[in-house]
Amino acid sequence: MKYCFGVDIGGTTVKIGLFTTEGELLDKWEIKTRTENKGEAILPDIAESLKEKMEEKQIDREEMSGIGIGIPAPVSADGIVQNTANLGWGYKEVKRELEELTGMRVAVGNDANVAALGEMWLGAGKGKKDMIMVTLGTGVGGGVIVNGQPLVGAHGAGGEIGHLCVNYEETDHCGCGNTGCLEQYASATGITRLAQKRLEKDDAKTSLRGQKLSAKAVFDALKEGDQVAEEIVEEFGAYLGHAMANLAAVADPSVIVIGGGVSKAGEILLGYVEKNFKEKAFFANKDTEFVLATLGNDAGICGAAKLIL
Amino acid sequence: MKYCFGVDIGGTTVKIGLFTTEGELLDKWEIKTRTENKGEAILPDIAESLKEKMEEKQIDREEMSGIGIGIPAPVSADGIVQNTANLGWGYKEVKRELEELTGMRVAVGNDANVAALGEMWLGAGKGKKDMIMVTLGTGVGGGVIVNGQPLVGAHGAGGEIGHLCVNYEETDHCGCGNTGCLEQYASATGITRLAQKRLEKDDAKTSLRGQKLSAKAVFDALKEGDQVAEEIVEEFGAYLGHAMANLAAVADPSVIVIGGGVSKAGEILLGYVEKNFKEKAFFANKDTEFVLATLGNDAGICGAAKLIL
Repeated sequence: MKYCFGVDIGGTTVKIGLFTTEGELLDKWEIKTRTENKGEAILPDIAESLKEKMEEKQIDREEMSGIGIGIPAPVSADGIVQNTANLGWGYKEVKRELEELTGMRVAVGNDANVAALGEMWLGAGKGKKDMIMVTLGTGVGGGVIVNGQPLVGAHGAGGEIGHLCVNYEETDHCGCGNTGCLEQYASATGITRLAQKRLEKDDAKTSLRGQKLSAKAVFDALKEGDQVAEEIVEEFGAYLGHAMANLAAVADPSVIVIGGGVSKAGEILLGYVEKNFKEKAFFANKDTEFVLATLGNDAGICGAAKLIL
Repeated sequence: MKYCFGVDIGGTTVKIGLFTTEGELLDKWEIKTRTENKGEAILPDIAESLKEKMEEKQIDREEMSGIGIGIPAPVSADGIVQNTANLGWGYKEVKRELEELTGMRVAVGNDANVAALGEMWLGAGKGKKDMIMVTLGTGVGGGVIVNGQPLVGAHGAGGEIGHLCVNYEETDHCGCGNTGCLEQYASATGITRLAQKRLEKDDAKTSLRGQKLSAKAVFDALKEGDQVAEEIVEEFGAYLGHAMANLAAVADPSVIVIGGGVSKAGEILLGYVEKNFKEKAFFANKDTEFVLATLGNDAGICGAAKLIL
């Protein structure tokens, strides 16, 4: 076996990578995600695209280890999805269907868990076996790697870090229906919300007033020494750091990897999270390392490929 | 292979069980834990006791799968302990030493993780692969089972449920040095502390006044319809239920098993925990089952035996 495919299905595009089994990314490309008619074309489109690539590269099926896929939904260990928010699928036996379409072995995982696996295999968690990845984007996603394997759970909903309750006093609701979820404070929209609330609190001078608020604007102001921006980031860091301390008490990782759009703020972000983490971490976990994700959008295809190996 | 030993080392006694590999407990007994001289006699005493039992039962070494051991300390995946609070051991290569003493295969785990494994194999979690066990004793211990295996973690400190922070406003300190740990509200001593604080708050009439406060006294009063006792149990249930909701968002178990001395209060306890759990659980986890542990003190030897199989 020399090669494998890593496939990362999103609501708009499907990202695909061709890898050697040693982890070299030989080629990557995208196809459109056709979600119409309950997403019935998605898997056939993928199968067709993989077949074309194998013909182009003159790769035989016997040289392929198989196909790993990440999906934006809970996935059971046997590759079955019950429902998806943005692919159009209801109940779908993804593993079985794609195996029938391609004649190759298929492994399926949740996209956040798969991205975590990618960072462990080829990115910021390289060489580690116990890792937490937090993805700070529009929402907060996550993946927990235990002894080299993603924590899938009984409903395929393991690692839902964004919905840890971090504030029992909160009255605003999270998209999930609960109140006080980490996602309400540590996602891009959460940070914007913290900023909005801070600006409304008093009329402290800050460069954030009069501009469109965003997580990026807050971190940019922080880097220019803005005091109010620092208060906002400190609050974000406390929520995220304390949540990670609780998570570490359970999962005992050697490294916590922070990725997603918000992490583009860079190393400055890690300090605020790590300081608050250390303040509340159980003694056995105080030396847990914090690092930024390094694979960006490729984490999904990398982790998907690793799933099948 | 027909048989295996499960060994549960505690600070006072070592519990030992002889099992068939199918999970039948054929015999169990205890020996004293000799902690003097840095606990140097503990492993030789165990080896001697196992040898005697095999002679008594006329079992050959070839019929033995091996020996599983639970230890009251973090244990790495390769069976090494860095330190123990109550056995006298510092750094100790438990697996290697006991293998040399007995000539049999040895697997070592943390006692709380091992007890969880026992309940999964032969007790309240039978047939389940994703499970959380919470042990409410003097402290709060726990074990998280992921896909049939205990979550060990990078430092052997996985599943430290008792040190999840559940109250960021707390000013009293937990034994671990932090503030607001679950153990401060849900252990036997934690419940006593909640009761003490409640009684001091006002002079509400309750049968708890004038008697020695304990978790048992609180649950006994609850069963007799005492209103103040119910408030205390409700508070306990909120802390434990909310902590389990957070834990479930990460570990996604199908069942949460509650054991330890406090759980002797019986089924009445589960209702208070489950109600609060459902209030805060992520939607994918709302159907998680709550059950009482069934193996009592045998959970440790059962799980230890399972470790080696």
